[in-house]
Amino acid sequence: MNAKQLMEQVGARAKEAARAMAKAPTRAKNEALLEAARLLEERKARILQANARDMEAARARGLSEALLDRLLLNDARIAAMAQGLREIAALPDPVGEIRAMRTRPSGIQVGKMRVPIGVIGVIFESRPNVAADASGLCMKAGNAVILRGGSESAQSVAEIVACVREGLERAGLPAEAVQTAPTTDRAFVGAMLQATEYLDLVIPRGGKSLIARVAAESRVPVLKHYDGVCHVYVDRAADLAMAENIAFNAKVQRPGVCNAMETLLVHAEIAPRFLPKMLARFHEAGVELRGCERTQKLAGEVPVAPASEEDWRAEYLALILAVRVVDSLEEAIAHIARFGSGHTDAIVTNDYAAGMRFLREVDSSSVIWNASTRFADGYEYGLGAEIGISTDRLHARGPVGLEGLTTEKWIVFGHGEVRG
Amino acid sequence: MNAKQLMEQVGARAKEAARAMAKAPTRAKNEALLEAARLLEERKARILQANARDMEAARARGLSEALLDRLLLNDARIAAMAQGLREIAALPDPVGEIRAMRTRPSGIQVGKMRVPIGVIGVIFESRPNVAADASGLCMKAGNAVILRGGSESAQSVAEIVACVREGLERAGLPAEAVQTAPTTDRAFVGAMLQATEYLDLVIPRGGKSLIARVAAESRVPVLKHYDGVCHVYVDRAADLAMAENIAFNAKVQRPGVCNAMETLLVHAEIAPRFLPKMLARFHEAGVELRGCERTQKLAGEVPVAPASEEDWRAEYLALILAVRVVDSLEEAIAHIARFGSGHTDAIVTNDYAAGMRFLREVDSSSVIWNASTRFADGYEYGLGAEIGISTDRLHARGPVGLEGLTTEKWIVFGHGEVRG
Repeated sequence: MNAKQLMEQVGARAKEAARAMAKAPTRAKNEALLEAARLLEERKARILQANARDMEAARARGLSEALLDRLLLNDARIAAMAQGLREIAALPDPVGEIRAMRTRPSGIQVGKMRVPIGVIGVIFESRPNVAADASGLCMKAGNAVILRGGSESAQSVAEIVACVREGLERAGLPAEAVQTAPTTDRAFVGAMLQATEYLDLVIPRGGKSLIARVAAESRVPVLKHYDGVCHVYVDRAADLAMAENIAFNAKVQRPGVCNAMETLLVHAEIAPRFLPKMLARFHEAGVELRGCERTQKLAGEVPVAPASEEDWRAEYLALILAVRVVDSLEEAIAHIARFGSGHTDAIVTNDYAAGMRFLREVDSSSVIWNASTRFADGYEYGLGAEIGISTDRLHARGPVGLEGLTTEKWIVFGHGEVRG
Repeated sequence: MNAKQLMEQVGARAKEAARAMAKAPTRAKNEALLEAARLLEERKARILQANARDMEAARARGLSEALLDRLLLNDARIAAMAQGLREIAALPDPVGEIRAMRTRPSGIQVGKMRVPIGVIGVIFESRPNVAADASGLCMKAGNAVILRGGSESAQSVAEIVACVREGLERAGLPAEAVQTAPTTDRAFVGAMLQATEYLDLVIPRGGKSLIARVAAESRVPVLKHYDGVCHVYVDRAADLAMAENIAFNAKVQRPGVCNAMETLLVHAEIAPRFLPKMLARFHEAGVELRGCERTQKLAGEVPVAPASEEDWRAEYLALILAVRVVDSLEEAIAHIARFGSGHTDAIVTNDYAAGMRFLREVDSSSVIWNASTRFADGYEYGLGAEIGISTDRLHARGPVGLEGLTTEKWIVFGHGEVRG
């Protein structure tokens, strides 16, 4: 069979399973998640053996240390997968929730009911734990999922998925609700991206080139996660001690993640009081600084390289920071609109009008007032778990949890009403 | 300039206008809508002259009577456009609405703010009134819009859009928030569908071939409106008089629209009491009937042709009805899942468990209990106006009004919180 035929086979099974999952009681879905968690722990030795085979093959193929680290499973990582599934079981079931019912002049009552999306394709790279996380979230939201991981993690993923499928069966739910691609042939990804009849959503989890390929090729709707070029703007009415803490945390606490700050914007009025101390603190923490001319003048002994337009657009994901002095709130908002990536941006100010304008006018998936950009995260927002942070505008923006894996339909309660 | 360059020019202006519209006060947007409505009435003679030129050219090109009717403007249709804009002005502004704020253990308060989508492309065919409706809805929702109508309505649309743009200017808003395609060259549509940098959403308004082309080609997200193959299922626990009224209304009141019933499903237990009278009533009203064997047996003197699988899939949009007797609620739900189009489906029953199962398990954009399918409509649902009825699953399903032309971002109120 070619890739298209394989996809049709997998897709037809997923569609049927999705109908069963859509009406599955909350209790059965939770039981499946808890059984899967138990099985992951019970079969730890088998999973580690499979992972050792994947690791060996990967080493033989000369994969980088960074990739090998992503591929690696150990006791702690297996425990974390199991714990993740238990946390998803503990979350409220979003499916079936009814909201906003209102009575219309005709007499009908109309509102919305939350329902699963259907069949979701998850295309990921080397991290095998994505198989557990993504399956768990998709299942709880009442969907079926087709997982397509990288060939380097195939054996580890197969063992993990076996636990999840057995969990489903023990709970009386169809194992076919979680399937893996029947081939690691790259053509299968192409077939998934054309399978609008079977797939309702595709979620690529991985590096920029994977996401770009999926976005460019897919005829199925895609939930994407692009760059985080995040800003902190220190307004002239900021509490400067608070601003220093927030900016420091946003850059230094975990620089390699998408919600870390990449550019610091400072209002010219407070820059002479704020920047010298702030820049010194960054320098002490090992942060490489690149600034506009005014920043450089305020840096004193601290080395600040000249920033180019490339720096304003950079997602460093490292201990490097671009710094710019701006003359107004408007200039800060314009800078973010021009150079930002619409991920997460923060303002520090005690001025009500400035904060409200920033909140309203900055067009990012998370806009934060007086807190660190590092809070833009599913756990911190109370979603319990996230399948990613969407930089798309439609359907779901920012951290995506169970709600983002569902949609809403209209429902109407009538009493025999007809239209006149 | 080629189509791509033209699109970039129009797109850059639209993007800039979208930023201004996103922060425009409600009062200014409403003033623009009311001014545009006033101008449409004031310039009625000019609009009718432009329309007469479009009509003349269309007749010369031999367009069908149906197309000519869609193209035609008259006093009533211009008054309806103006009235439509006034109704949009009267609707609450969705932009800036904050909901679901909750305090997290870290101390931050997190929730969502409703914001415009950005730049929306509307591709439509011969009805010039779409230019007024779509502009009005997009403007109120804080978006910029690029309108691409058919060449046959170009002169009428130009006059209508001139009123809308002057309305924007009189309200101090950018006229570029509403632009028309600078050329009727078909290549411009192709350029729009590739313009992911400038367009955030494309909405095709027209026949199936237009929608299919846009869906197949577009790299920009599309909000689609496909077929309405709508069902009424008369359960064994239905009030039969209510069922008869609902089924009759759903088929006969306006058969040419997407929310009219195309297939009637009847539970076998009540079919002998329900169908003979129901079929006779349809026959008297001129409805051509096509039924399963059991339906034919219960038809008495009423002519019922045998229904084929093609009939179960048909969107007749005419006084034709397919009728099937089913043995159970499950069979009805399975029929709808297999042959329906996910648009609008109704159950008539007084049985709580049957109604709740139908509501939950039927996967359509509107699921209706004890009322006519004809209620699936933006006005009837209280949206005030609709840009279409989406048969997509993501972002917006069913009737789409102002809310569907916006999206939500996360907002966070902090007090200096940083992540540990």
